[in-house]
This record gives sequence, C-alpha cells and structure tokens, in this order.
Amino acid sequence: MPLSETPLLRALRGDRPDTAPVWFMRQAGRSLPEYRELRVGTRMLDACLDPALAAEITLQPVRRHGVDAAIFFSDIVVPLRLAGVAVEIEPGRGPVFADPVRTASDVVALTSIDPAEVAAASQPIRDAVAIIAAELGERTPLIGFAGAPFTLAAYLVEGGPSKEHLRARAMMHADPESWHRLAGWLARVASEFLAVQADAGASAVQLFDSWAGSLSREDYRTFVAPHSRAALEDARGRVPIIHFGVGTGPILPDMRLGGIADAVGADWRTPLDEAAQLLGPDVTVQGNIDPALLRAPWLVLEAHVLDVLRRGRAARAHIVNLGHGVPPDTDPAVLTRIVELIHSGRA
Amino acid sequence: MPLSETPLLRALRGDRPDTAPVWFMRQAGRSLPEYRELRVGTRMLDACLDPALAAEITLQPVRRHGVDAAIFFSDIVVPLRLAGVAVEIEPGRGPVFADPVRTASDVVALTSIDPAEVAAASQPIRDAVAIIAAELGERTPLIGFAGAPFTLAAYLVEGGPSKEHLRARAMMHADPESWHRLAGWLARVASEFLAVQADAGASAVQLFDSWAGSLSREDYRTFVAPHSRAALEDARGRVPIIHFGVGTGPILPDMRLGGIADAVGADWRTPLDEAAQLLGPDVTVQGNIDPALLRAPWLVLEAHVLDVLRRGRAARAHIVNLGHGVPPDTDPAVLTRIVELIHSGRA
Repeated sequence: MPLSETPLLRALRGDRPDTAPVWFMRQAGRSLPEYRELRVGTRMLDACLDPALAAEITLQPVRRHGVDAAIFFSDIVVPLRLAGVAVEIEPGRGPVFADPVRTASDVVALTSIDPAEVAAASQPIRDAVAIIAAELGERTPLIGFAGAPFTLAAYLVEGGPSKEHLRARAMMHADPESWHRLAGWLARVASEFLAVQADAGASAVQLFDSWAGSLSREDYRTFVAPHSRAALEDARGRVPIIHFGVGTGPILPDMRLGGIADAVGADWRTPLDEAAQLLGPDVTVQGNIDPALLRAPWLVLEAHVLDVLRRGRAARAHIVNLGHGVPPDTDPAVLTRIVELIHSGRA
Repeated sequence: MPLSETPLLRALRGDRPDTAPVWFMRQAGRSLPEYRELRVGTRMLDACLDPALAAEITLQPVRRHGVDAAIFFSDIVVPLRLAGVAVEIEPGRGPVFADPVRTASDVVALTSIDPAEVAAASQPIRDAVAIIAAELGERTPLIGFAGAPFTLAAYLVEGGPSKEHLRARAMMHADPESWHRLAGWLARVASEFLAVQADAGASAVQLFDSWAGSLSREDYRTFVAPHSRAALEDARGRVPIIHFGVGTGPILPDMRLGGIADAVGADWRTPLDEAAQLLGPDVTVQGNIDPALLRAPWLVLEAHVLDVLRRGRAARAHIVNLGHGVPPDTDPAVLTRIVELIHSGRA
C-alpha cells in the first residue's frame, strides 16, 4: 500500500477509510517512559537538533501505540533557534527568549534576519526526517509541523509564556505596522520550516496556533489569519494541511483560512458534529477526545471515544486525536487502548 | 440620591442611566501604588481578613478613579480559609491548597465541614463591609462576590492553579457522585459568603466562574450550571446578581443560569452586540474593554472604549468593565481616563 493510501492521507483528501486514522498531539514526549529515559541529561532544544535522538523519539509512539501517523518530534521555537534567536525551553515553564521583542526597533532588528537562515541551518532537521521516513517506509505517514505566527509572536513579545498574551495582542492595535512586520516574518520562518520537513519526507503538515482562541474574531481576521495563510501558501498543493488551535470554537470557520486547510482541529469544547456544521462539507475534522477523560475509568473513556467517533461522522472525514496535547502524566497504556478501540472497527 | 438610584443599580434593573456605570474587575489591587504600599509585609489572605486594611484597599480605587462601584477586596478562596481549609495565596502563582481534594474520601472529608462555619468565622468580613458601606454612604454601591463552584473546585482538585483544569474536569466524568457532592458543598460555601456580604451592606453580588470557559457546553450544563445557580439562590431577589467567566462566548446563554443573573459579563472575545443577541432582552451586559488595549496609545484605547459603548447599546443596559481583571502593571492613570471618558457622556 503506498503512503497515499494510508488512512491519514485518505482522510485528509476527504475519503472515509474503513477505520478512522488516529494520532495524538504530543504522543512523542513525556507520557512515555522510554522518552523520559532518552531525554535524561539532554536539554529540549538540543534533543530537537540531534537527528538520531529526534528520530528515535518520533518513532517511539508509533511502535508502542500503532498510531496512524508519526508527528515529528520538535518544538515550535526550533526554527527561531535555527535563525539565530536566543531561546531556551525551561522545564515546567516553556519557551523563554533572552530578548523579548516589544518595540518597533526590536521588531526591525529581529526581522532583519533572513528567513532563509532557517533552511540553511536545517540539516539536523532534514537528517532526522530522512531517518524517520526511511524507518516508517510506506506504512505510516509523518506529519511535519510549525507554530503559527500569532502563537510564536505571543511568546516572543512577552519573552515567555503568558496567560492572555496581552503584549502581543496590544502590539496589534498599538503599532499595527510592527505587528504585521513581525507576523509576516514569522510566517516566512514557519514556511521555511515546513518546506524543510516536506522536502525531507513529511507527508502532511500541521500548523499549531495554540493560542488563537485568545483572540476576538475581528482581531483573528485582521491581524492573524492572513499571516497563517501566508505561512501555508508554499505547502499548499504539495502536502495536505491540518490547522489546529485551542479554544477556537467561535472562530472555527476562519480556521479554514479561506479553504487552504484540508483539516481543521477542534479542542474538547466543540462537539465534532457542531464543528463539522460550522466548517462545512469541504474540510476534514480532527479531534477531539477530552484529555481530562484520559484519567477516567476505561468504560467512561470508551463511551466518550465512541461519542467522538459518532459525532465525527457528520464531517466529510475524521482524524481522531485529542482536543489538545497528551498530558505528561498520562498512562500510555490508555492511549494504546484507544488506538485498539478505533482500529477494532467497533465504533 | 438613594443607592438604588445609582447608575450601577439602575443598570442592573435594566434602566439606562445618562451615562453607563463603570467599574473594573481587580480595580483594588496591584495596579495602584497606594495598594502596593499598604500590602508590604502582609500576606494576601491576612490582608483579606484585616477589616480596616480590606476596607481601605476596597476604597482606594473608588477615590482615585471615581468608579461607579466598589468591589470588595477579598479572594475567592477566603470562605474556604474561613471554613478551616488550609490554603495560601502564593505571590505570582495563586491559591495553593495543602491537601488537594482528589479522591472520593477527600471529598467526603472536605464536605463534612458545615458550610455554616463560613458565616460563623466571618466577623472580619462583616466588619470590613460595614466600614466600606459607611464610608461610601449613598453615593456608591459595593459589590460583594464569591467564586463559583467549578472555579473553586478547579483549584481544590488540582491543589493549585492549572491550565486546563484536567483533574476537576476528570472528576465530573470519572466519579460524578463525588463531583456533585463537592460542587454542591462549594455552592453552599459561596452562598454563605455572599449572604455575609449582602447582610453587612453589599448592594449587589458577582459570581466569578473564571474558568467556566474551559468546559464544553454539555459539561457546563450537566456538572456546573446547577451548582452555580444553587450558589445564587439565596441572593436572588435580595440583591442583584452579576455572573462572569472568561472565554464563555460559546456558553453565554447558559451563563444566565435560567434567568437568575441580572447581568452577564463577557470577556474581550465576544463583541457586546453579539453578546446581547445571545443573551436576549432580559439581561444587562457587563464588559468588555480588552485589557490588552490598556497598553495602547490613548487614541487607540479611546476608539476601542467608544466601540464597546456603542455595541453595549444593543443590550437592555450596559455596565462598563474590562473583559477580565486589571493587569497588575497597568498605569492607573489610564483607568481614570476611561472613567472620565465614560462619565463625560461623549460616547
């Protein structure tokens, strides 16, 4: 079976394979003991830039769970590190930038970096993707990814994680010229990072706009959607595109980015039948098992998964996933059991 | 002018005073230098339980900004502390409980405390409210408040702040009996705390369900709304009720709690004309200046405030507020200027 006939890629085209494809955001990561073991003594971004290590971590959940896709083990700030931006990921906190990008001159300085630097410095990424693609062969597609301009900007402008992304959202209104310059540059950075992964063997890409749900619809449309679309323009037609954000119920139709997204992810708040209705008949839905339910007894979780599958049938096709990433303290056996349930065809 | 004719209380009845009433969530707090000075050397919960100090902090923003309401300086975990629960507020982190409430037996142990203990231990609250009410006289109403059962449970079950409230949301499904016991008990705790404030002179109350926006509509209706309603049942008819949560656009109509709320707050994501349409003609809207815009140049912020006022006219009445609390690093002069703009009647 060629890769193009795997359930994930079929579902992204709008076909309905016999059983819905399933993968989990953050399936490669702290929920797996074999991951925690490999990571001992290695900082997050160093792990992302070690081809053998990043490849092995990417493959671990495919072997363990039998999911229908690998997701490249990396981080949304990796292309910024590759472009020369000083960033670290602090355990338990998240990305922290040595120099927050707050003023017009900060933005000018950052955006003077040529986004092509990302591609130039991406040999470790190419190498990792090549190892993974060779190992997966025609059985399992690899999903590449990038952070969307707004989510990257939310970290950059604040200098680290923030709850309501006040500084980035303020910049949109206080200095729209700087905002658009910054977001436009981040779109090119994301685009370069996606192209590297697609060139090296990724079969699909996902744009993560984790914090898009913090925006009003008007701000999303004016200040964010055009840049997210620009980030995906080069990938369009080359590889199928998944677009995901948390808390995006009220802006779900906008997450289609004018039809550029082949699939749109919904978090646990929006039932998939409602999502399908909001999104229309030309897009695949992805999601949306509630990560909270991974802690519930199996019978409760099973009923929830079956309900998610049932509601997903309202869409042209459905890629099963969680409503957000795998919580680090998840029992991995539960994830395997979900995959088995879905592949059993009982749903 | 009797208190009942002040703009806030008129707007809560659905009248339209000449200028819309305005107050700010967290107006009493870290944005004010006079607050930071008073708080030196005093822990948050100790400050809440010192009647003279809590009264003075409550009054500071009324004097400085000329807002149309005082909001009682306290914290949503204060009634839990009064009931004997071991809780502290850690600066920069939030409420932290010595003993998280995670198991059925944890819930049984906690809920064996008689909620009447809150009232029995509330003399410092009564004294503070009495000082404030005497000082405000008939000019300015005082708003009392309590945390809603879900938001309190989100902290209690986790043991502290959490992003997606996974443990509390898991308990709803994994052990609904324990969940309803816990939330029912928290409703009685909140009800006692509101009654103490209303008895001592608060003219209105607000129920803060800050994290309600993390729930699907179905979970909100099944596991949360009945308990929030129960928390307000005693206040109903005695004092007007405001109900607020963040990210509640998709569940806004449910936030009316079957008509028990006189006003429903919207955060910055939902334009007030849309909120008014979702809520219907029998409820006042509160909000929803974007806290991010407090950092923008005045002309940008002014245009935004005028837009909020314009959209608020779609509701039967409008109480101007932010879409969430005042960020700690806000320039207080900006808040004063907003109050002056609204009171100028230019809008």
